[in-house]
Amino acid sequence: MKIVVIHGPNLNLLGTREPAVYGTRSLADLDAEIAAHARARGVEVETFQSNHEGEIVARIHQAAADGAAIVINPGAYTHTSLAIADALRGVAVPAVEVHLSNLHARGPERARSVTAAACRGIVGGFGFASYRLGIDALLAAEADASSS
Amino acid sequence: MKIVVIHGPNLNLLGTREPAVYGTRSLADLDAEIAAHARARGVEVETFQSNHEGEIVARIHQAAADGAAIVINPGAYTHTSLAIADALRGVAVPAVEVHLSNLHARGPERARSVTAAACRGIVGGFGFASYRLGIDALLAAEADASSS
Amino acid sequence: MKIVVIHGPNLNLLGTREPAVYGTRSLADLDAEIAAHARARGVEVETFQSNHEGEIVARIHQAAADGAAIVINPGAYTHTSLAIADALRGVAVPAVEVHLSNLHARGPERARSVTAAACRGIVGGFGFASYRLGIDALLAAEADASSS
Amino acid sequence: MKIVVIHGPNLNLLGTREPAVYGTRSLADLDAEIAAHARARGVEVETFQSNHEGEIVARIHQAAADGAAIVINPGAYTHTSLAIADALRGVAVPAVEVHLSNLHARGPERARSVTAAACRGIVGGFGFASYRLGIDALLAAEADASSS
Amino acid sequence: MKIVVIHGPNLNLLGTREPAVYGTRSLADLDAEIAAHARARGVEVETFQSNHEGEIVARIHQAAADGAAIVINPGAYTHTSLAIADALRGVAVPAVEVHLSNLHARGPERARSVTAAACRGIVGGFGFASYRLGIDALLAAEADASSS
Amino acid sequence: MKIVVIHGPNLNLLGTREPAVYGTRSLADLDAEIAAHARARGVEVETFQSNHEGEIVARIHQAAADGAAIVINPGAYTHTSLAIADALRGVAVPAVEVHLSNLHARGPERARSVTAAACRGIVGGFGFASYRLGIDALLAAEADASSS
Amino acid sequence: MKIVVIHGPNLNLLGTREPAVYGTRSLADLDAEIAAHARARGVEVETFQSNHEGEIVARIHQAAADGAAIVINPGAYTHTSLAIADALRGVAVPAVEVHLSNLHARGPERARSVTAAACRGIVGGFGFASYRLGIDALLAAEADASSS
Amino acid sequence: MKIVVIHGPNLNLLGTREPAVYGTRSLADLDAEIAAHARARGVEVETFQSNHEGEIVARIHQAAADGAAIVINPGAYTHTSLAIADALRGVAVPAVEVHLSNLHARGPERARSVTAAACRGIVGGFGFASYRLGIDALLAAEADASSS
Amino acid sequence: MKIVVIHGPNLNLLGTREPAVYGTRSLADLDAEIAAHARARGVEVETFQSNHEGEIVARIHQAAADGAAIVINPGAYTHTSLAIADALRGVAVPAVEVHLSNLHARGPERARSVTAAACRGIVGGFGFASYRLGIDALLAAEADASSS
Amino acid sequence: MKIVVIHGPNLNLLGTREPAVYGTRSLADLDAEIAAHARARGVEVETFQSNHEGEIVARIHQAAADGAAIVINPGAYTHTSLAIADALRGVAVPAVEVHLSNLHARGPERARSVTAAACRGIVGGFGFASYRLGIDALLAAEADASSS
Amino acid sequence: MKIVVIHGPNLNLLGTREPAVYGTRSLADLDAEIAAHARARGVEVETFQSNHEGEIVARIHQAAADGAAIVINPGAYTHTSLAIADALRGVAVPAVEVHLSNLHARGPERARSVTAAACRGIVGGFGFASYRLGIDALLAAEADASSS
Amino acid sequence: MKIVVIHGPNLNLLGTREPAVYGTRSLADLDAEIAAHARARGVEVETFQSNHEGEIVARIHQAAADGAAIVINPGAYTHTSLAIADALRGVAVPAVEVHLSNLHARGPERARSVTAAACRGIVGGFGFASYRLGIDALLAAEADASSS
Repeated sequence: MKIVVIHGPNLNLLGTREPAVYGTRSLADLDAEIAAHARARGVEVETFQSNHEGEIVARIHQAAADGAAIVINPGAYTHTSLAIADALRGVAVPAVEVHLSNLHARGPERARSVTAAACRGIVGGFGFASYRLGIDALLAAEADASSS
Repeated sequence: MKIVVIHGPNLNLLGTREPAVYGTRSLADLDAEIAAHARARGVEVETFQSNHEGEIVARIHQAAADGAAIVINPGAYTHTSLAIADALRGVAVPAVEVHLSNLHARGPERARSVTAAACRGIVGGFGFASYRLGIDALLAAEADASSS
Repeated sequence: MKIVVIHGPNLNLLGTREPAVYGTRSLADLDAEIAAHARARGVEVETFQSNHEGEIVARIHQAAADGAAIVINPGAYTHTSLAIADALRGVAVPAVEVHLSNLHARGPERARSVTAAACRGIVGGFGFASYRLGIDALLAAEADASSS
Repeated sequence: MKIVVIHGPNLNLLGTREPAVYGTRSLADLDAEIAAHARARGVEVETFQSNHEGEIVARIHQAAADGAAIVINPGAYTHTSLAIADALRGVAVPAVEVHLSNLHARGPERARSVTAAACRGIVGGFGFASYRLGIDALLAAEADASSS
Repeated sequence: MKIVVIHGPNLNLLGTREPAVYGTRSLADLDAEIAAHARARGVEVETFQSNHEGEIVARIHQAAADGAAIVINPGAYTHTSLAIADALRGVAVPAVEVHLSNLHARGPERARSVTAAACRGIVGGFGFASYRLGIDALLAAEADASSS
Repeated sequence: MKIVVIHGPNLNLLGTREPAVYGTRSLADLDAEIAAHARARGVEVETFQSNHEGEIVARIHQAAADGAAIVINPGAYTHTSLAIADALRGVAVPAVEVHLSNLHARGPERARSVTAAACRGIVGGFGFASYRLGIDALLAAEADASSS
Repeated sequence: MKIVVIHGPNLNLLGTREPAVYGTRSLADLDAEIAAHARARGVEVETFQSNHEGEIVARIHQAAADGAAIVINPGAYTHTSLAIADALRGVAVPAVEVHLSNLHARGPERARSVTAAACRGIVGGFGFASYRLGIDALLAAEADASSS
Repeated sequence: MKIVVIHGPNLNLLGTREPAVYGTRSLADLDAEIAAHARARGVEVETFQSNHEGEIVARIHQAAADGAAIVINPGAYTHTSLAIADALRGVAVPAVEVHLSNLHARGPERARSVTAAACRGIVGGFGFASYRLGIDALLAAEADASSS
Repeated sequence: MKIVVIHGPNLNLLGTREPAVYGTRSLADLDAEIAAHARARGVEVETFQSNHEGEIVARIHQAAADGAAIVINPGAYTHTSLAIADALRGVAVPAVEVHLSNLHARGPERARSVTAAACRGIVGGFGFASYRLGIDALLAAEADASSS
Repeated sequence: MKIVVIHGPNLNLLGTREPAVYGTRSLADLDAEIAAHARARGVEVETFQSNHEGEIVARIHQAAADGAAIVINPGAYTHTSLAIADALRGVAVPAVEVHLSNLHARGPERARSVTAAACRGIVGGFGFASYRLGIDALLAAEADASSS
Repeated sequence: MKIVVIHGPNLNLLGTREPAVYGTRSLADLDAEIAAHARARGVEVETFQSNHEGEIVARIHQAAADGAAIVINPGAYTHTSLAIADALRGVAVPAVEVHLSNLHARGPERARSVTAAACRGIVGGFGFASYRLGIDALLAAEADASSS
Repeated sequence: MKIVVIHGPNLNLLGTREPAVYGTRSLADLDAEIAAHARARGVEVETFQSNHEGEIVARIHQAAADGAAIVINPGAYTHTSLAIADALRGVAVPAVEVHLSNLHARGPERARSVTAAACRGIVGGFGFASYRLGIDALLAAEADASSS
């Protein structure tokens, strides 16, 4: 199995942006943790960050062309991007949406996810661990699918 | 670590209710799977199902009295129960909300969770695996807390 | 055919609650009238009243286990209970929603039925007769189904 | 007792319109069934269909002038016609609203009835049988009124 | 000056419809009063009643072809008919909207007038006198226009 | 009969404020026209202008103490002042709301009148003539009341 | 192929109604242009105008009985008529909605089309040409259908 | 006079739940304070706590059967329970709603009380004292009623 | 302790305004009752009535300058005045909002209090007694504060 | 005449994305069909696809600099992009919005077009043919403009 | 150039009201700073504070009569006062709205300015400096106007 | 001090886009004016324009890395971009939002700023001068901060 992890806008600020909320570890730290977890699970992983809605759309297309599953944290685009939702719906690969924080605890504007409806499921609120759980969720979903 | 898994209304119908959506495995099957997973993780687990909002509130109180963490699938009460949300907020133990299906793919009325805002995070859309991931999420959150 | 008639919250007050609106006959009177009508139609009937949302959910489950059709007046839960709606959707038996008064004449908050969408149809506004018509509606629906 | 049954717009398409939903029997079949039922109940019945809001308003006025009670399926006008609602309110004869399908199961736009608030009650979701039940509802209401 | 007075749906019920609200005088009484008032003011008047939205649209067109000004009580169509509003906007003759009752005192659904925006002004709440005042308003507006 | 005409905020700007919309005649011109019309109708009239919501409330109280009927153009307070509406409701004298322009043609925020619901009726859209018609409306309402 | 072109309310005013917006050519001019275009495309065409919602519903039924496709400009009924939408949905013939002006540029109330959802597609904003394009759209859709 | 004080869901957590907000005194402390106050006022009092909506409904019925007045803090059910509101409306005894905190200072979702409309009045924001004031309010209302 | 009791707009009409709702006792009667109650409680009290939002704002400022606590019935300004809410928030003295009637029983527009969020708590629905209870609430809050 | 055809996000997936909905032909097939149609109409055409909102804005600017008219299918940006709408409004060249599917048949969120208001008109629902009709619409609009 | 600076309700509390938010400097300090800035810019300035909506309306009228430009901080009236907005629209002098704090950061109710739409522009969020920048904005606008 | 001025989408059209609204001067003219003003104030300035949301996000990150303050006109992204708002919130440098036109005068959709809440303040409505005032606002805010 091959997985692309997509980080949306402003996640490159990790470690410097509101450290009280998001912690002091950087995106590189997160990517290293993701890589280690993927290795432990025996899956190939690639990470990607972009502040551009269009690049994220294109990366989703590319993932499908590569036959890779997707773990995506669309950042602020979670709440507005029909284009990313359409991209996820338009490709055949499974996808899981993850969030560092708990959307439901952040006010009505942030509680709504436009993109999650196009994913298999959602994991949110557990910091870096949300990504590890997202990978495990993909694997569990695959195991279920192949066992049935 | 000790965990109480709380199943909300109608989950006792599992296996007979809309099998095309929820599968043919029963609540007993799910509880067995949860127990096996907890054993593998070395945590003590207890499961509980109720169709009564008040009993779920009381079970949350009891969990706190027992020092147990909570994995909760509030079922239909997810969308309406301020009482369950208050109970979760009122006790000091960590809680994770889980769902078999993906709320965001089920229309605006089902996308809103009143109770999730009172939990640490949410996992949804992965069938039975949502519960296993919910337990792992609790453990990850504990590990983070104790390492900091 | 076997039918369970479920009365929701406050219907036990019948005869004493706002008699100008609901009349002076009691719930026992209503149940007697239902029983007589069922006898005349040659169907077995059982009546049940509860103020508890969870008990109503459970009674619906029980009806399905007994192979009984359902006539339900969810009372105030009509407008809020996704749990009862899920219970009705989750079981395979036919159900009809009935109301003593005409919901559409009672303001926007009362006009909306969350539970009716999970029933085959609705009868409302005819006092005690709504229940008799609800039983006839169930029989008519069965006749249609068996003749096709 | 004399009853006018009013069919609103598009009901003349019965049997050809979405037969999977509305069945293959025509409006003539429905009117015959209504006539037979009325005969069995010993009431005089007349049926009327119109696609014109204004004609339906006028037919309601005429019914009142004739001293006839009304069974009305306002079709699509159910959701928009204050004029029909005013007509029903403006005349003294009792009226019952009926629907072939279950409004509450057809989305928020169809769940709202502007006209039902001006009727004694509503019966919906039972196909042709909704009309027979509507006639019985009128008779039951009359019986109640005359016995009190 | 020539004026057409247009009465919308259900106004033919005047005198019989909710006499406590609308009084016991009939539409013929109202038309006689309008005619007398027009005579006193030296203007030609014609009255017209219809329950049909389309006939009202056509009568507005006809008024314009005849060079007549318009006094219109659109009845229930006040709140919904964009077609009547378009007709009033589409013709060059001045129009005044009148109502027997005070729309603003009848709940939010009745307070909104779709058609008044296409008229020069509105007079409402004075029973039959609303029509007399509407005619005077047309005359005053004409006087203003011709004096400037 | 005695009438107090109350002009709300900014009406003292008449003649200088947006003359293309409100004309070049001043408030003094309007008051003179009102006085002349009252004389012609044989009623006593007093006019009053204030930019203060509280003074308008007090003037309404005073009118009631003097046994005077009220013609009121609440200006911008039309859309927001529950206090003026309460004052009008709290006194026993009849009141008519008038407007120079047609509220319904000025966007949703201006179409809503909080105060009109507390008056007998409304006249709007006829410039200065709205006031004359408002006085006539009061007289007509009185005549109706005394003839019945 | 046979096509019925249906013009909704007020389109008979074409050429006289707001010529700055709708031009100075009349409905007869438009019908001639439609006829010429149909001839050029080798299809039979019939045009029909009505201000009556009910007649438009009936004309749609008739078109279906005649096996004709439909080009419809519902005028003001576009935004309110569930009855026309039901008629279009109830018949099996293809339909295209056309508009002289661009609905999306006319405010939120006009941007919503209740009827378009029941058509294959929509063409709007091109004046008389919208009708020619609507006919071509029907032909293209037929060609697609027959080539697949 | 006899009074039943009803505490809604989660109030059994008092003293442990968010002590910064609700203080460190327990429900037993509150009940003792209520009992002392009742004694001082010469009224009989009974206290009751439940997390179950249905039990609260039943307790209200019981109060009415016992001829007791009601002081009720519906907790989270304040904002959602039409069933409790119906129960309060359905019984003839006077009731006062009390809250420890000030609902209006807790966001729009908490500001709305579904149940208060069915009570004589409301007291909120004064901690334990709200209950004492609620009892006094009942006594004052009784005194007013018996003196008139 | 020193308390200023502020009466908002139209409360000077007490005894004459809708006596069926507000009773036949005047504002002077109310002020006398307040004075007697304050005397009994050993606090100094001053009462003030104004129909002017600005004067009420200024009176709140003055109360703070005098070190007086506040009991305020903002009347109709309850639902709209951010200025009064800002004044209450801007001063350091404790305040209690009181109402003669039960806001929650008077429709959605009256149920919302803009000003209550700036007070410690609210008492409403008990007629004149609301003021006495409001004074007691202030004293109770002070006692709590000084004992902690 | 020169035309730029702009395809928005995810249109590069054509042929692979939901083929049941969008068909099996690719974007290259569509562009070939557009080119052939342009050739037949004697106009120069260029096609452009981007997933980037900013690139689409820039391409619109470029079209204006080149004096080219625009046919645009903004894809998911249709519903959210004020930036594209501003770009279309900011340039002087005519533009037509096209859609493969019928927006009005895809739920409220998709029915709203933010960008169409900045175009001359809209064509939607006819698959690839929407583009050919869009080009013809531009030509018709030009012909109208040059003939007047 | 002559400028009137108008301070709305509660600004007289400056220095004592929430000093953590608004600072410890008083309104006199602010007025002194404004005067010094005006002197430096060579413009005449007058400052005015009122808690009365009506007085602010009148002061705007007076400014226009004096030929003075306006810098206004409407305080809480910013969000509700159509009367002040009408006054600003009704006079010919330029006006700039200023705020100490950033409205957009204070929740939806405070983000909306009813009065700003009637001003040339807005400056907010810079404490006392907002006033100095407001004066400079007026001067810049004047310079632009006189240079064109 | 170092300032980056960021121009959002379509600002490169300045001078050609709706010159009646935005004037005939180009973006180069604006940038020259900004440079001159910065020079006069002794601050270093850099200007940047992009139509890409993602590039604007990245430029904000870069500004923070360079220790530069920000003046930003997000153009159409003002109303929709949570990503830009998150970027502004995520960096530590001060930012001011500026607009050429007055948002509050451009309809409800344009009045709302998603990004302003993440800035220190806002200046809008003064054409090119808004930028100069924005720079001055940054300097004033710095002066305040360093003097305290």
